[in-house]
Amino acid sequence: MAFSKIGIVGAGAIGGYYGALLARAGYDVHFLVRSDLAAVREHGLSVKRPNDEFRLYPVRAHATAEEMGPCDLVVIALKATGNDALNRILPPLLHERTALLTLENGLGSDEFLADRFGAERVIGGLCFICVNRTAPGAIWCMQPGSLSLAEFGRPVGDRLKELAAMFTRAGVKCSVSDDLADVRWKKLVWNVPFNGLSIAAGGITTDRILAQSDLEGEVRALMREIIDAAAKLGHAIPLSFIDRQIDATRPMGPYKPSSLIDFLARKEVEVEAIWGEPLRRAEAAGASMPRLRMLYALLRSLTSTARC
Amino acid sequence: MAFSKIGIVGAGAIGGYYGALLARAGYDVHFLVRSDLAAVREHGLSVKRPNDEFRLYPVRAHATAEEMGPCDLVVIALKATGNDALNRILPPLLHERTALLTLENGLGSDEFLADRFGAERVIGGLCFICVNRTAPGAIWCMQPGSLSLAEFGRPVGDRLKELAAMFTRAGVKCSVSDDLADVRWKKLVWNVPFNGLSIAAGGITTDRILAQSDLEGEVRALMREIIDAAAKLGHAIPLSFIDRQIDATRPMGPYKPSSLIDFLARKEVEVEAIWGEPLRRAEAAGASMPRLRMLYALLRSLTSTARC
Repeated sequence: MAFSKIGIVGAGAIGGYYGALLARAGYDVHFLVRSDLAAVREHGLSVKRPNDEFRLYPVRAHATAEEMGPCDLVVIALKATGNDALNRILPPLLHERTALLTLENGLGSDEFLADRFGAERVIGGLCFICVNRTAPGAIWCMQPGSLSLAEFGRPVGDRLKELAAMFTRAGVKCSVSDDLADVRWKKLVWNVPFNGLSIAAGGITTDRILAQSDLEGEVRALMREIIDAAAKLGHAIPLSFIDRQIDATRPMGPYKPSSLIDFLARKEVEVEAIWGEPLRRAEAAGASMPRLRMLYALLRSLTSTARC
Repeated sequence: MAFSKIGIVGAGAIGGYYGALLARAGYDVHFLVRSDLAAVREHGLSVKRPNDEFRLYPVRAHATAEEMGPCDLVVIALKATGNDALNRILPPLLHERTALLTLENGLGSDEFLADRFGAERVIGGLCFICVNRTAPGAIWCMQPGSLSLAEFGRPVGDRLKELAAMFTRAGVKCSVSDDLADVRWKKLVWNVPFNGLSIAAGGITTDRILAQSDLEGEVRALMREIIDAAAKLGHAIPLSFIDRQIDATRPMGPYKPSSLIDFLARKEVEVEAIWGEPLRRAEAAGASMPRLRMLYALLRSLTSTARC
């Protein structure tokens, strides 16, 4: 099958980045934009990458899902905290065979989409990437990293291969997997400690986490908890993955994980998707996760507390 | 022996409270006062207790240790972070038999004093009390609680009984113990979770900690870690102590643990005495304390970070 018309829901860092790359490669990409709509219509989308800089203009930016209309592929790049809005946003975007690619962090969005819109539509994508939205319509990618794609509850098929080829043609390093949950847990190995500790340790960037040996120790211990929990759930992640994640993070310098950006901007943090749901699934499988449990309790309190 | 002349080092909540009670009972009490000196000289020390309110005036307040001169008993009510200053403060206060009663929190102050000034001088006191300094020279005690006294490395003797009798005459509920470390670990059961989580969970009072069930769970889990560690070090604290501590904390309402007060006032927090030193001693004895280790790492980061 071919994805002739692509809809991007959420034009923040992730949606704007991948959408702009796909559009530049010639695909018919439509963006559903909320707060940045005026800026994107006026100036387009500017993307800065390590060895590459371009501006997409004009942008097919829409204010409503009705205006955008049915697509062959909808890329969901909202925060996981915004899933409820999908009940309203998605119906006008669907035809019978529309595929839904969710790029959301953490656990829960695949099941949410499958439950509401049909499991056969759902594809998960995990972005191992270092990208921030620096201003409305302005996206700065520090490390393009890679995108891992997997069907929800099915092995790799023609649709997924087509999707991966599309991203590859757009300049995205892309891989496919037969096990979506496996890839999600791998991403959690990074997100749980770095997104969490960046908030709980005082609003600090990843380099400052790694500059404190006892905090680096906590990063590693949390990663170990995630890997042990994933193993109990049937997802084997080698322990060497820990060193590789730490080594990949050091050159990122003063990077703000997306949750820290949300926290500092007083936006809702994806506490349940990244910490709550993994904790519940792991404990249900018999895993003991004292550090994750404490971090989750602290983050729940920190994100519900009036902050100075 | 008799304690004819008593010197109080540090006239904050703890030093001011016990010193004022002893002075009211007729003892010759001298206060070494730093920042509050002018206020204390002008207005004395005001103490508010649940069923009692009094003002000590005039106060024998001194600006320097030299001015105060040798005492029979020196009560040390500084923060544990101020121990280095004792090298300078204490020598002018000592005669051959001067006893040193340290009311400092956490672990380490007994050994520090024993090492510098002689183990035979050192007595430890643990204040199970709910008291804040609300303004210079103004002390508000919400729960008088009790004071546990123990000799450092020796069983109860005449000196300790005399000291306990003195506090009792001053209106302080007082007990003596043969095992100072045992009492210190008991106090840590409260201080580690409540002082720590009040900071790490976003600057919240004890009632707000207990209002969040997952944070209460972390309080209990941290208490359990402390009790297990204490057991490995030879100090048996029954698990029922956990419920008793929680039950005693609920009626305290919106109480700010002393470490939270320090943190919010941008004063140095007793991170090593309350979290670091217990962690090191417990791990040296083979205890596993994942939650304390994470809390310690977070507190080190939070107290060294420029705060908003």
